[in-house]
Amino acid sequence: MRYELYYWPSIQGRGEFVRLALEEAGADYVDIARRKGGMEAMFRLLEGERVARPPFAPPFLKAGRLLIAQTANILLYLGQRYRLAPAETAGRIWAHQLQLTIADLVDEVHDTHHPIASSLYYEDQRPEAKRRASDFLARRAPKFLDYFERVLERNPKGDRHLVGARLTYPDLSLFQVVAGLRYAFPRAMRRLERRYKRVVALHERVAERPRISAYLASPRRLPFNEQGIFRHYPALDAR
Amino acid sequence: MRYELYYWPSIQGRGEFVRLALEEAGADYVDIARRKGGMEAMFRLLEGERVARPPFAPPFLKAGRLLIAQTANILLYLGQRYRLAPAETAGRIWAHQLQLTIADLVDEVHDTHHPIASSLYYEDQRPEAKRRASDFLARRAPKFLDYFERVLERNPKGDRHLVGARLTYPDLSLFQVVAGLRYAFPRAMRRLERRYKRVVALHERVAERPRISAYLASPRRLPFNEQGIFRHYPALDAR
Repeated sequence: MRYELYYWPSIQGRGEFVRLALEEAGADYVDIARRKGGMEAMFRLLEGERVARPPFAPPFLKAGRLLIAQTANILLYLGQRYRLAPAETAGRIWAHQLQLTIADLVDEVHDTHHPIASSLYYEDQRPEAKRRASDFLARRAPKFLDYFERVLERNPKGDRHLVGARLTYPDLSLFQVVAGLRYAFPRAMRRLERRYKRVVALHERVAERPRISAYLASPRRLPFNEQGIFRHYPALDAR
Repeated sequence: MRYELYYWPSIQGRGEFVRLALEEAGADYVDIARRKGGMEAMFRLLEGERVARPPFAPPFLKAGRLLIAQTANILLYLGQRYRLAPAETAGRIWAHQLQLTIADLVDEVHDTHHPIASSLYYEDQRPEAKRRASDFLARRAPKFLDYFERVLERNPKGDRHLVGARLTYPDLSLFQVVAGLRYAFPRAMRRLERRYKRVVALHERVAERPRISAYLASPRRLPFNEQGIFRHYPALDAR
């Protein structure tokens, strides 16, 4: 089956978590909105009056007749199809729980530069962004990273994966979180990373997986930029 | 099986979405932290060093040997066990997608009174809260409510439910969202509600279901208050 991924064509954003899973799976997919006419196709599904089960927002994935939105929901689906999640119930629930916690972290990263309104520019909410980013770096990022470090440490199958003895989709997403935090907050991350050796090691291992490293070197991997979720505004980084 | 629900004992918060599902299901459950010694039990699971799969935060549900966190993940689990979600894959994915969209809305409601930091009091971020709440009421709440109205309108099985021809867990959660928005923003909601007749009608029908109406009249239903997610601060409501 050829999947159709629908996401904003110029940013990694939330779509990147799905791209990483599709790439690791070696799935056949088209990143629709990056093709000619693709944005129109995306808006037809978002706004078309005959779509019975419309997505609220990108990313969404067309898989045959299924139209699936919400990043964690798409990964739940792909995880089962591509053995990127455990087959048994308890492991599947645990992987999804971790993914939803990553989604919460990603929301908080977004709000470091948009604490007041997504409809306003960053430039219109700079002082508030500075306050929020400062709390994020002092309290929230360490709380989340502590948590994932602990999850790795306690995994009975070893600290190389978040869930069980094999790679699962939350590993791919945690890789992306580390990459994004490094891009957005290089000074803060240099200090933080020392405390999260397992998380950092997982990031390195994921980056070296053959399909992921090929993807990262390809033009399919968009660069980070200041329209995405992880934005580098030096004023928001640690001093 | 007797479920154990772990959540803050004095607020509805995110735990309420789980309580509503357990109540509608007629499930046997204990709201642990509201019992003597319950908070200690909750912190043992959150912070205990021997918990192999620790939750990041409440709510979480103990179901036999399973420990499940993340509201939407708990509902995914309960939905299948209690026929509060479709049995077939496409419907199950769709119900979860709607639940995750409700979770996004709930996060945004939280941030109307805490736009800068959860670690600060509302009183320490009042001007920012006013700006964020104003954008929420002008843009975000209508966008979400429009969406759910559209989902009801387009349901091929009729506009009485979000998914298919029967009650599912997102219906229960949408009931809670309407109740919460009415509590937090009574003036804004009086105006908004006129445009969302299907959403409002769904709220009324859920409130009248025998188990839900018994629950709402019982001491198990905590009142809304200014420690929860839906808080009534008149300064944040529409004028």
